[in-house]
Amino acid sequence: VIPRQDNLELSRLEAFSDGVFAISITLLVLEIKLPKEDVRELWARMGSIWPSFLSFFLSFVIILIIWVNHHKVINLARRSDNALLYTNGLLLLLVTFIPFPTAVLGETLLSSHPQQGILLYCGTFLPLSLSFRAVFHAIVNHRRLVRAEIKDEDIRRISRAYWLGFLVYLRACIFAVFFPCLGLAVYLSLNVLWLALPYATRSTEIKGLT
Amino acid sequence: VIPRQDNLELSRLEAFSDGVFAISITLLVLEIKLPKEDVRELWARMGSIWPSFLSFFLSFVIILIIWVNHHKVINLARRSDNALLYTNGLLLLLVTFIPFPTAVLGETLLSSHPQQGILLYCGTFLPLSLSFRAVFHAIVNHRRLVRAEIKDEDIRRISRAYWLGFLVYLRACIFAVFFPCLGLAVYLSLNVLWLALPYATRSTEIKGLT
Amino acid sequence: VIPRQDNLELSRLEAFSDGVFAISITLLVLEIKLPKEDVRELWARMGSIWPSFLSFFLSFVIILIIWVNHHKVINLARRSDNALLYTNGLLLLLVTFIPFPTAVLGETLLSSHPQQGILLYCGTFLPLSLSFRAVFHAIVNHRRLVRAEIKDEDIRRISRAYWLGFLVYLRACIFAVFFPCLGLAVYLSLNVLWLALPYATRSTEIKGLT
Amino acid sequence: VIPRQDNLELSRLEAFSDGVFAISITLLVLEIKLPKEDVRELWARMGSIWPSFLSFFLSFVIILIIWVNHHKVINLARRSDNALLYTNGLLLLLVTFIPFPTAVLGETLLSSHPQQGILLYCGTFLPLSLSFRAVFHAIVNHRRLVRAEIKDEDIRRISRAYWLGFLVYLRACIFAVFFPCLGLAVYLSLNVLWLALPYATRSTEIKGLT
Repeated sequence: VIPRQDNLELSRLEAFSDGVFAISITLLVLEIKLPKEDVRELWARMGSIWPSFLSFFLSFVIILIIWVNHHKVINLARRSDNALLYTNGLLLLLVTFIPFPTAVLGETLLSSHPQQGILLYCGTFLPLSLSFRAVFHAIVNHRRLVRAEIKDEDIRRISRAYWLGFLVYLRACIFAVFFPCLGLAVYLSLNVLWLALPYATRSTEIKGLT
Repeated sequence: VIPRQDNLELSRLEAFSDGVFAISITLLVLEIKLPKEDVRELWARMGSIWPSFLSFFLSFVIILIIWVNHHKVINLARRSDNALLYTNGLLLLLVTFIPFPTAVLGETLLSSHPQQGILLYCGTFLPLSLSFRAVFHAIVNHRRLVRAEIKDEDIRRISRAYWLGFLVYLRACIFAVFFPCLGLAVYLSLNVLWLALPYATRSTEIKGLT
Repeated sequence: VIPRQDNLELSRLEAFSDGVFAISITLLVLEIKLPKEDVRELWARMGSIWPSFLSFFLSFVIILIIWVNHHKVINLARRSDNALLYTNGLLLLLVTFIPFPTAVLGETLLSSHPQQGILLYCGTFLPLSLSFRAVFHAIVNHRRLVRAEIKDEDIRRISRAYWLGFLVYLRACIFAVFFPCLGLAVYLSLNVLWLALPYATRSTEIKGLT
Repeated sequence: VIPRQDNLELSRLEAFSDGVFAISITLLVLEIKLPKEDVRELWARMGSIWPSFLSFFLSFVIILIIWVNHHKVINLARRSDNALLYTNGLLLLLVTFIPFPTAVLGETLLSSHPQQGILLYCGTFLPLSLSFRAVFHAIVNHRRLVRAEIKDEDIRRISRAYWLGFLVYLRACIFAVFFPCLGLAVYLSLNVLWLALPYATRSTEIKGLT
């Protein structure tokens, strides 16, 4: 009976998080609004809101990457507890907030002061990166919730990757203070790194099987 | 065949509730609206809607806490029935309503009469607390749906905690009638209590295992 | 391998439907909009939109009842197929449409011609009732997808209840043409009937166990 | 332990995708907006926005068909990997975008230049068709993730159907450049084809069983 309960807890945490990720990623499109009073033809009206399309695309890719990484971090755990529930809640708080800076970025990028919108956007992902670290910490601290087959060296390697990620985000934010557009560009290229983040334990296991 | 059906019923109730929690918590951000006609720079415009950020944060934390507690209450049950389905439905009705008082609180906190918005906000959680109690009752009444390994004393302790919670909510509402901001502050600190609500059965079991 | 696939199919159909029900039921609150230009105090402004609260409540209860019944109908099936997928899709089309007549009812109930909003609202549930019947038919026709332990007489009893339900809905619609408010009231009381709709097979099984 | 992890990965991918499909399909109704300033009676106001109802209906049917096909493609896989996660992400990006061209189609179909709205609408489904192909490719390429019981000839047949589908979509888009309404009509009839797309492996298996 106990294992059922523990697995359920972890699977409900995953299901709830997946729901929040899926809804946040799908609500982004609601922030793309064609100017109603504009009497020009469709292509011109769509062209005038290109920053909204850009920020829609950016936020979609970022939330997707967060989801994939969340998925892998949670996979390290064998069960859930309150610390994991609430650090995960903090992560989700920041994820549900993403549509707001996304809309602001789309709205301000063509204004006379695009810098603040870019800062808000990049700045949203600094605490998000820290909250990701907190979820990771809640799982691996003293191996509390870690599945038995995960090795200590894997945990250390992922931990280093997270700190590195945070430093790079921080640098992108500081860049954005002085060179807004460059900061946004650096920011984007950084996300590609996450795609390659090695959770080697798992791939090793799978390689060992195939 | 029967166990599959009963488990499915309970898991569909959980999945549906998780969906409603996840959507409600994610819709909150849609209520944060930057004033369009404001020509000041971004930080000033965001500063002028700080009550919206506060109420977004509050409602997020509260829905998350409700979700965690819902999760634990449902975990007491071994199967579902109509009474559980419909008391749970009443709970969800109040949860889906939360974005409305959240938006109203954000909008009225800086008006000349903030009291009514605060009362509406605090008042929403009184029936919510009662409906939580109703879900609990639908499960534990005469041990109808309670899993065999849950002890009677655990049920009694959780039951007392719920009544206590209701009384404290009620007091916070009465406070808010006379001292709106104090009432809101009391209200917030109360939610921290929920974090520590002991469903000791489970932790005991887990401690016994580890 | 085959059973896994078939069960997945049915469980994905359930998960998808649950998602649509959960989202529809949670979007309802977005249609409650406080009049912005109104300078009166909060209670007066909320009082002036009471039809929005009424239609929010009505639609919530109805979607919840549809969800519970959907849950029970799908429970008759042992696997899914294309006919079930697409009749279920028709049902979901009408469910996702519900927020529109809900908003219209809230908006027109206090206008000089409340009748058309009521007709649209009641009229939405006529095809919904038929699509429910279609889902049921896709499962039980020649016992195609029916689980082995469901008896023919149970299917016949549920079938009769569905036709009865349709006739009563139809009558409520006709009522609403001549006596709008009475039609709405009849409509509401009808939904209570669904709460008591006997899917006796299941309860019998459960009684047999307990 | 490993199978659990792999199955979880695939089931989380399915759950996340189902969530996105369910939310996209349910958000469509939010784009149907009754003109507020219109003082005519309800039927006349609803009549004046018939293109919104049409595009709501179209997009609902299309997303439902995409969902059913997605369901069947994912069923070919025995596990997930990064390539599948990210091609699937691309597919979901385009699915979450659908409400935008849907709203635009509803808004522009009665304007003096309906052509661009139709082109945008039809054009959205060209890359969607390609991304569907990419998901399929990520699964079947060198049989990487294909379940053992799926035969090579089945994969080839589905592959041909996808290319055919893409060519037909392309033709519908070119049609729409010159004959907007005809293009839309061709487009619609095409979707019926998807209903009949043979994933014969599965039906064969099932027939073999029944």
